[in-house]
Amino acid sequence: MPANLTDYMNHYITIIEQEITNQLEKLEIPKPLKDSMLYSMNAGGKRLRPILLIASYEAFANDYKKALSSSVALEMIHTYSLIHDDLPAMDNDDYRRGKLTNHKVFDEATAILAGDGLLTYSFEVIANDPLLDEKQKIEIIKMLSHTSGPNGMVGGQILDMQAENRESNLQELERIHELKTGELIKFAIYTGAYLGNATKEQLQYLEEFAYYLGLIFQVQDDILDVTGDEAKLGKRLGSDEESKKSTYPRLLGIDGAIELKNQYVTSAKNALKKAEVEDSYLMNLTEHFSKRDH
Amino acid sequence: MPANLTDYMNHYITIIEQEITNQLEKLEIPKPLKDSMLYSMNAGGKRLRPILLIASYEAFANDYKKALSSSVALEMIHTYSLIHDDLPAMDNDDYRRGKLTNHKVFDEATAILAGDGLLTYSFEVIANDPLLDEKQKIEIIKMLSHTSGPNGMVGGQILDMQAENRESNLQELERIHELKTGELIKFAIYTGAYLGNATKEQLQYLEEFAYYLGLIFQVQDDILDVTGDEAKLGKRLGSDEESKKSTYPRLLGIDGAIELKNQYVTSAKNALKKAEVEDSYLMNLTEHFSKRDH
Repeated sequence: MPANLTDYMNHYITIIEQEITNQLEKLEIPKPLKDSMLYSMNAGGKRLRPILLIASYEAFANDYKKALSSSVALEMIHTYSLIHDDLPAMDNDDYRRGKLTNHKVFDEATAILAGDGLLTYSFEVIANDPLLDEKQKIEIIKMLSHTSGPNGMVGGQILDMQAENRESNLQELERIHELKTGELIKFAIYTGAYLGNATKEQLQYLEEFAYYLGLIFQVQDDILDVTGDEAKLGKRLGSDEESKKSTYPRLLGIDGAIELKNQYVTSAKNALKKAEVEDSYLMNLTEHFSKRDH
Repeated sequence: MPANLTDYMNHYITIIEQEITNQLEKLEIPKPLKDSMLYSMNAGGKRLRPILLIASYEAFANDYKKALSSSVALEMIHTYSLIHDDLPAMDNDDYRRGKLTNHKVFDEATAILAGDGLLTYSFEVIANDPLLDEKQKIEIIKMLSHTSGPNGMVGGQILDMQAENRESNLQELERIHELKTGELIKFAIYTGAYLGNATKEQLQYLEEFAYYLGLIFQVQDDILDVTGDEAKLGKRLGSDEESKKSTYPRLLGIDGAIELKNQYVTSAKNALKKAEVEDSYLMNLTEHFSKRDH
């Protein structure tokens, strides 16, 4: 295992991206569909969710290979949600990470279907992993469908849309982010630890950790929309400002948002200590997430 | 088991619709999402696919209950595909089965998310069925993701779009329908028989049966677009005529299309005989499908 976080992340980004390519290239499907799925899967994502999943696995076990199919499935789910989110009927974004969005390169119909395809295929990837037994596969599929579906991310998207043009309080804001972003982070942390044979008690503390990590992620997103660097972020800033949508800086001021984020970091680290994995890369990743500039 | 096909179908429609309601009503999710998912699930579908799955199960075993979760999951997948298919970026349909389409009642963003929600939830429904063991769940999830995803239905949608404004030959037409319609029918027949403990040989013949049944389904759809009754069908006829899209009547003439359908019916029935289930309701359903008027 590489000794510093950057090497660690780069090491696994290479492995994850190789596996994404393997899983998609072997599909014998119509070319425009494959091209569209591949385009978004390779459009410069930071792979934070799959790295989290692997880091959570490695907090308890060795050799990432058992965690790889879930990591790739998770990235497929995340990517499908971005494709659908960018559609004209949703956020109507032309660019993401400095690249044209899927429906701008292909067309809207293809983008909708590429999203549907990635979502569906993510379950097939897990179901076919020869390294997992049936019990593990079912546990992961339960968790993935629950955290990404109507009870989780999809529900969060609806709440986010409803909040678009009105003000929310801090509690409502947290609920939106818990579902929209937090649930997939929970999947990453839970699944990694589950496959690594964490105890029930450890899994409970890690859910607590995932909860705070999801919030850190989102507060930092809101902070970057005010203070970030457009070139690094690959998107136009101040977009939150233009809508009436509530954000942490708007509700708490920029200093208040930073203060809250630091509280979340403390809570996240405490949860890791209680789970007895404070010497894992999850600790460094928490720090990394809270300070990321893109 | 009711003695005639109409009673048989009505009997199971009631059971299937009750289970759809059970599965959706228990979701604690944002109201617009739930309403939108429920609206399309209850918008007058004929439940042909879930009935087929149960009939296939009952060709080999008693008591439909083990087949119910897969039937409902299949209907969710079918319904999500209709919601996305009706979107302005796809077929842009305002009505389906005489009722407003999902995005006309709600909005496009909600319709996209309701489709995503149903698709994702279908896997959760299977994964949580207490009547199935883990091996069965994984086998079904493999089959469902494969037949409904990029390798199956989603791939068929892309081919169908590509064929929209150009002429296809009979072979290309069959390939589109095999993926777009046939794969879910294959799922229905295979899963029912698999759960009913059919032998490998029987499963093979049933796959052959499903192949012909899917084609019967589609030829009849094309025939109804020319000769059907708008009131019964709940949609405007002649829509195929307006696009350049190839259909069976256009390639073969209306008599040729009927002749081909009858050949498929013979082949389908022969496959049932080889599987030794010629006294099951699958036989009656084949007849029913080939003669349906809506």
